[in-house]
Amino acid sequence: MASEGTARVFPAKRLEAFITGALTALGLPEQDAAVCATRVTEADLRGVDTHGIFRLPHYCKRIRAGGINLRPRVRPVRENAVTALVDGDNGMGHVVMTYATRLAIRKAAEVGLAWVGTFNGNHAGAGAIYSTMPVAHDMIGMYMTVANGNHMPPWGGVEVMLGTNPISVAIPAGNEPPIALDIATTVSSYGKVKLAAQKGESIPVGWMIDRKGQPLTDPKRAAEGFLLPIGGYKGYGLNVVIGMLAGVLNGAAFGRNVVDFNKDFATRNNSGHMILAVRVDNFQPVDAFKQEMDRVIREIRESERMENVDRIWLPGEMEHHRIRERLEHGIPLAPAVVDQLRQLAVELNLSDRLE
Amino acid sequence: MASEGTARVFPAKRLEAFITGALTALGLPEQDAAVCATRVTEADLRGVDTHGIFRLPHYCKRIRAGGINLRPRVRPVRENAVTALVDGDNGMGHVVMTYATRLAIRKAAEVGLAWVGTFNGNHAGAGAIYSTMPVAHDMIGMYMTVANGNHMPPWGGVEVMLGTNPISVAIPAGNEPPIALDIATTVSSYGKVKLAAQKGESIPVGWMIDRKGQPLTDPKRAAEGFLLPIGGYKGYGLNVVIGMLAGVLNGAAFGRNVVDFNKDFATRNNSGHMILAVRVDNFQPVDAFKQEMDRVIREIRESERMENVDRIWLPGEMEHHRIRERLEHGIPLAPAVVDQLRQLAVELNLSDRLE
Repeated sequence: MASEGTARVFPAKRLEAFITGALTALGLPEQDAAVCATRVTEADLRGVDTHGIFRLPHYCKRIRAGGINLRPRVRPVRENAVTALVDGDNGMGHVVMTYATRLAIRKAAEVGLAWVGTFNGNHAGAGAIYSTMPVAHDMIGMYMTVANGNHMPPWGGVEVMLGTNPISVAIPAGNEPPIALDIATTVSSYGKVKLAAQKGESIPVGWMIDRKGQPLTDPKRAAEGFLLPIGGYKGYGLNVVIGMLAGVLNGAAFGRNVVDFNKDFATRNNSGHMILAVRVDNFQPVDAFKQEMDRVIREIRESERMENVDRIWLPGEMEHHRIRERLEHGIPLAPAVVDQLRQLAVELNLSDRLE
Repeated sequence: MASEGTARVFPAKRLEAFITGALTALGLPEQDAAVCATRVTEADLRGVDTHGIFRLPHYCKRIRAGGINLRPRVRPVRENAVTALVDGDNGMGHVVMTYATRLAIRKAAEVGLAWVGTFNGNHAGAGAIYSTMPVAHDMIGMYMTVANGNHMPPWGGVEVMLGTNPISVAIPAGNEPPIALDIATTVSSYGKVKLAAQKGESIPVGWMIDRKGQPLTDPKRAAEGFLLPIGGYKGYGLNVVIGMLAGVLNGAAFGRNVVDFNKDFATRNNSGHMILAVRVDNFQPVDAFKQEMDRVIREIRESERMENVDRIWLPGEMEHHRIRERLEHGIPLAPAVVDQLRQLAVELNLSDRLE
């Protein structure tokens, strides 16, 4: 068929409403469902398709398997002026991390700096969704998490004990888009491998190796191999440190006690996250800082390029453009994703079936 | 000659005294010289030879060229309960960063968390020297800096505007060595390239490329090419973010205004650094945390290894062993380094000429 492989485009608001509808149908309170929908759609708007509505069927499967507490009491169990440890009570990750990030922003607004860790959480979507929240308050945001599944061994090992453990940092700018780095510490995220498998594409050499150390390029064979860290032992080290700061420090899962959320939908994940917020005006007047950020951003963007390179991008700049484009023209979804969502709509008897 | 290429071994205390002697001979106050000597020797003890006494002739050259303020008034120019911006007054980097790190520890001890940034500083040696200082106080340390010379273009560019911009994170453990990650965001540090050049060795493919994108393996040609970031665009992004947090946020150099301290010995560096300290007991009882760190560390170390791999190492573990070994058996220095130090001793008329 001519239309096979052609993306369907939906307005962000429609997808957001669809997600809210699905989650409330499954028993989430309207307010929590709306928070999840906003966060998930933000990932789609940024172009982080692997962490957007693509994941909704998976989230729903988990809820239906009893793997999520629909009425969590999300609350700090330890707290002082600048830190908090938040018990997510096994609620939806987006709900827990939205709570934690708002708490960090509130504390940083008062004192200048805050670090909030969470345990008993779940997959919370794209890191930049949280690291960028402080930016609107003229704060820098830093986010780390332990990924919900292990796909990488320690450096020199063959036992998959580490996830993609990402870090995201967002920094305000003036007229330029804010900086928003959001990277897995593996060369590829596992989500990208899954998306390639779903699209029937192969993955590049350097993303994964098999247990004998040979390149693995068929994403359907992903379970036979493991992801590679960025920069070899350096990325391994960064990965471990993120796991300790977002996991161990919060009493959350890291290492062998991480539950693979692609295989086990019922067991509590005890997913750990951390968010740090720091006010720019601790260090510089906000306007002067933003002006200098703009200058540095332009200096980098306008520097001499390699032949055949059209543009130098700053971290988060592509996503910034994509947000504007997708807000205006809608969010494109691959046919396979649309099919899954339609199936979900039928199962949940939703009024909108994305026809 | 049979002895050519054989390292001479010196007790740490002797090298520390040598450094103190050299720096006081050049006019540094005794106390500041001793701080520098301790920090520099700590790098040698860790085995970070590129950031140890190897750098002393360079530091001295800079002092003699008038590039360092020997009597700096190191002080916070902005300060609250949890943050400070410290003006290094162009003092020795080790003095400035020791001051800043102690300030961060003091604030974190009182409030739980602290972030101290510095500007007007200089090269301060190995990052782990500072990130590990909070560990003795049951705190996690995080350190970032803008490197003192640009050797990498933005991703897709050919103009070298970025340094190796390293990040270091240290985390307390119990009976196990503390975690101490210390990585450049480039595949190799420029120091390692310089050391290879000094040793007459070639560097591996993947460390550097030339301006046409071809591998550069002769470290003597380093000026013709540039370092590569870890994980491609990911390392580039992390590098930029570190530059902004350690540089721009502190009003310190980043991008084109970075002074190449290998070429220009007189111009003020305005080197920027940041140190974050956070108390473990904000989140977990210290003993329980350390016990869990030990468990996780052992789980990783004892996991199944690849064939031909003798041991899985945790970040900072090799350095921990090296510190103990070098404290007991001394610090080995390459003959070329010893020659340079002897020449320095003659020039400064030091009593110890490392004979």
